[in-house]
Amino acid sequence: MKLATYDLGGTVRVGLVSDDETSIQPIAAADMLDAIVRWDEIAGALAGEDSVPLSRVRLLAPIPHPRRNIICVGKNYRDHAKEFALSGFEAGAVAGAEIDTHPAVFTKPASTVIGPDAEVDTHPGVTDSIDYEVELALVIGRGGKGIKAADAFSHIFGYTIVNDVTARDLQKSHKQWFIGKSLDTFCPMGPWITTADALDAENLDVKTWVNGELRQNANTRDLIFTIPSLIETISAGMTLEPGDIIATGTPSGVGIGFKPPKFLKSGDVVKLSISGIGELTNRFA
Amino acid sequence: MKLATYDLGGTVRVGLVSDDETSIQPIAAADMLDAIVRWDEIAGALAGEDSVPLSRVRLLAPIPHPRRNIICVGKNYRDHAKEFALSGFEAGAVAGAEIDTHPAVFTKPASTVIGPDAEVDTHPGVTDSIDYEVELALVIGRGGKGIKAADAFSHIFGYTIVNDVTARDLQKSHKQWFIGKSLDTFCPMGPWITTADALDAENLDVKTWVNGELRQNANTRDLIFTIPSLIETISAGMTLEPGDIIATGTPSGVGIGFKPPKFLKSGDVVKLSISGIGELTNRFA
Repeated sequence: MKLATYDLGGTVRVGLVSDDETSIQPIAAADMLDAIVRWDEIAGALAGEDSVPLSRVRLLAPIPHPRRNIICVGKNYRDHAKEFALSGFEAGAVAGAEIDTHPAVFTKPASTVIGPDAEVDTHPGVTDSIDYEVELALVIGRGGKGIKAADAFSHIFGYTIVNDVTARDLQKSHKQWFIGKSLDTFCPMGPWITTADALDAENLDVKTWVNGELRQNANTRDLIFTIPSLIETISAGMTLEPGDIIATGTPSGVGIGFKPPKFLKSGDVVKLSISGIGELTNRFA
Repeated sequence: MKLATYDLGGTVRVGLVSDDETSIQPIAAADMLDAIVRWDEIAGALAGEDSVPLSRVRLLAPIPHPRRNIICVGKNYRDHAKEFALSGFEAGAVAGAEIDTHPAVFTKPASTVIGPDAEVDTHPGVTDSIDYEVELALVIGRGGKGIKAADAFSHIFGYTIVNDVTARDLQKSHKQWFIGKSLDTFCPMGPWITTADALDAENLDVKTWVNGELRQNANTRDLIFTIPSLIETISAGMTLEPGDIIATGTPSGVGIGFKPPKFLKSGDVVKLSISGIGELTNRFA
């Protein structure tokens, strides 16, 4: 199933997207977090309100205001780890040690989140090296601490797409990545959450187009740190909560992978797709 | 003025601590964030309810559930930057480049926050190298983006003390510091917020004792990146919000500054003090 948060005439609702992706049926949840927490109850009583054509609503990020920062993983595909180290934009890069032994984990604040088709601010005067990063993001359903890899999938409610937009100059100069990842509007998310039962998260095609040109093209089977291992590692000492979002890292083909780098500029349109979920398109303002 | 969040018989309130720190008077605010946002209104109408002896209440963290991750600055005192680089626990340390040209900024999730006298979990099996870090933390009153250093102090509501507890092994192995900083209970905070008008934040004594032994002893005048410059840097592209907490970094004298390192163990008691604010004591479980 696909669950979206949407605006219809100024009212924000959560709804179930039809299989053919032409309509949406509101469900009895206050917001997506409420839907996640009470899903067993809600899923058993979906009948009721009429569907609305999807063309009539404005999709928002599936979780427009996450309760805490989005947890992000860096350098989690081999080819990307190498292109990043070779780009000159990785602080402290060491030749021959491009692949991390432990995942690099950082966060983006909730204030970065925007929805499908919303504009990304290019922050002139703050950065001149904006880059895209398509990522499979998992949404935690059942929280927990010390979750073992073998149990990890049972804690996942579903999946969505995240663009981990990055200011490469700030990412490098501050060494810790938070500043370069935290600029307002730097986390387009959507178009919706596909529930975990509806796809095989370890075999999804992940792609990015910039102005129609294919730039990233990979598959989640190539994650260095797998989804179960990430959940085990992150939850070892930190209790995961329902609605937590973990972005699993981006494959090669980002702007700094080119010589010279291909940074995003005003007017560029970035389209991401992940098989089994959908597409997420945003224009850079 | 000193504003605390406290529990009296199961009811959580916000109150004004008396000058002699023996009693607390509840104020008409739903919680500390509400007090911050409506402070001009609330400060003009403080009369009313009776004070309670401070000994009768249990102090909580002044903001027990921050709306987003705590923003933290690393390596912001020269002597500490050097002791960290020399300790062997800084991933990618480069001799001669101990002092950063741009502040290292990372976050701790709200789930790390505990109050005065609450116990810090030592997470056996997850880390064996827990360290303390006393830090002056500023609390944002008026939000904003693109705040200039000259205007920065007008955006600060007040100050509190934070212990940026750190798992040094995880901080090193994951390179990005979030994992090593994010374990449950790893952010003792308190004992209250001293309002900005009541102190000179750029001249405060900052100290730590472990089991009665003085370990850290510095002054905020020695911050490398000053409070105004931190606010300018962090708000350049990210809108700061009322209630945001920025921990400004720790001075030298942490456990990894000793050879061999003096890590915290079960039963240790860590007391922090900052002049003009107060003391914050926590036992490690």
